[in-house]
Amino acid sequence: LSEAALIRQIADATRVRGGTTIGIGDDAAVLDGAEPLVLTVDLLVEDVHFRAPFSSHDLGHKSLAVNLSDLAAMGAEPVAAVVGLALPPGGGLDIEQFYRGMDALAERHGVTVAGGDLSSGATLTISVSALGRLRRGCPPLTRRGARPGDMIVVTGPVGRSEAGRAALESASVRAAVGDAAAGRLITAHRRPEPQLAIVPALRELGVTALMDCSDGLMIDVGRMAEASGCAAVVDLDAVPIDPDVSAVAEALGEDAAIFAATGGEDYPLIAALDPAARPALEAALPRAEVVGVFASGSGTRAERDGAVVELARPGYTHDV
Amino acid sequence: LSEAALIRQIADATRVRGGTTIGIGDDAAVLDGAEPLVLTVDLLVEDVHFRAPFSSHDLGHKSLAVNLSDLAAMGAEPVAAVVGLALPPGGGLDIEQFYRGMDALAERHGVTVAGGDLSSGATLTISVSALGRLRRGCPPLTRRGARPGDMIVVTGPVGRSEAGRAALESASVRAAVGDAAAGRLITAHRRPEPQLAIVPALRELGVTALMDCSDGLMIDVGRMAEASGCAAVVDLDAVPIDPDVSAVAEALGEDAAIFAATGGEDYPLIAALDPAARPALEAALPRAEVVGVFASGSGTRAERDGAVVELARPGYTHDV
Repeated sequence: LSEAALIRQIADATRVRGGTTIGIGDDAAVLDGAEPLVLTVDLLVEDVHFRAPFSSHDLGHKSLAVNLSDLAAMGAEPVAAVVGLALPPGGGLDIEQFYRGMDALAERHGVTVAGGDLSSGATLTISVSALGRLRRGCPPLTRRGARPGDMIVVTGPVGRSEAGRAALESASVRAAVGDAAAGRLITAHRRPEPQLAIVPALRELGVTALMDCSDGLMIDVGRMAEASGCAAVVDLDAVPIDPDVSAVAEALGEDAAIFAATGGEDYPLIAALDPAARPALEAALPRAEVVGVFASGSGTRAERDGAVVELARPGYTHDV
Repeated sequence: LSEAALIRQIADATRVRGGTTIGIGDDAAVLDGAEPLVLTVDLLVEDVHFRAPFSSHDLGHKSLAVNLSDLAAMGAEPVAAVVGLALPPGGGLDIEQFYRGMDALAERHGVTVAGGDLSSGATLTISVSALGRLRRGCPPLTRRGARPGDMIVVTGPVGRSEAGRAALESASVRAAVGDAAAGRLITAHRRPEPQLAIVPALRELGVTALMDCSDGLMIDVGRMAEASGCAAVVDLDAVPIDPDVSAVAEALGEDAAIFAATGGEDYPLIAALDPAARPALEAALPRAEVVGVFASGSGTRAERDGAVVELARPGYTHDV
């Protein structure tokens, strides 16, 4: 079964009850109230989402970062997080360093790491749940509001985390790009930064749909288009290509734009915006790029010079 | 490292920030506000917390039940839950049945199962996080308020889940107790019922400390005593022994009261109450039993006829 089919099964098996406005299927759940609450959970599983050399501090950072990114994607401000850890015999995780890594990120966003559950388990598994709130007058931002004609905006570079993974896994990639670039990319892979700070600017710009880009630009734009009932066209020449990422793609013999557009785990936000907002977007968020357009119909495609480019894989996914 | 030492490490590595009143170390975290919020997480890991024959429906029930029990233990009303699932290749979990089991319990408590995260993973791991709220004028109930002289109250039978586990694992136990008793005990093991409904009565009675009994009466009374800075004495003759549980203990050649007092996963609540509340307790909660008393000093012991009984193990724990 595909992930989408599983999500439909889950939605069929469950009912939304008093006070919940968004259940299964978006970045997080929204619970109604004067200041609505947003609740999300993400798992990091060893050998699926990470493998050595990830330090315990890095894992603490990353496992909270992906949850804060989900809250940003709903337009929420983070409040607290709780942590479940399944720890294999003999460890593999320095719990104090893990929590220090998490708390350093939590501090920058005013979040409390509030408790958790420790268990033994054969596989190191990290489950973080984060709670956020929506300020009065700030409705949740979902992935469902994109309209044909809206611009597809990505709020930061993509491909850096995937390039960092390649640098971690390949000495020849590291040699080709040099230590400094490899170090920057590896940091991007290990310590993604959730884009909470730019959410107010996106609201000001009239964002019509928002989600985070966790599995790769192409796959996540496709999800937004499908949720919004429209099509999407991504212009590969518009995908911002970082020189470090270009160097890794070259070392791997891959097309840099395709590498960047299909690499996961960078955690910029993907926004749908009316094209009239373009000058204001460029002024407010200079790192954001317009990478395509939503259209009538269905399906998501990559183009270059107006011609469709077939991609070997749409993106990166850990899902079942 | 002991669990207590790990919790101290975690508390040292993290800071409580704006609006959080209770962080690491109780059944759940409490976030301040007009109607304070309560957030908790629990993991169920295959071969640690459960093994076959647990149906997917049972696992859905149990994984939500243990979280709702944590909310009850804080005096909170449940609102919503999110679920993280790490699924081994080839499954082992019927996702639709899992969610149906969860939602059937959620419905009885007005809870929304609001979303989740699906991942692959070598070991079936279920992470459920539940959000609750405290009604205006209802402070959180913690495990820290027991006073010397307070009664130790358990709000329902113990040992049934452990007896159900024994019946599941041993054909000779099943033969000794009969199919009907084995069936009742196995249901108690697979589908514990969180004690949310009795929390208002416990507040009325002036409860001074509250927690849920997940790992066994002796071990959890010990945790309440330690958190409250006092000692505890449990009278083994006062532990309510269910005839089904007695039959299993007899089949195993064990002392029934010790079996019941050290078996985990029944999920009654453990409450500290002033002895003056005893008549009101008996009227309001006839299934509750006074099983001992908190005292000055430290340490927790089991007694019978006023003599200390040494226990081979204090209880059941999945912890690292």
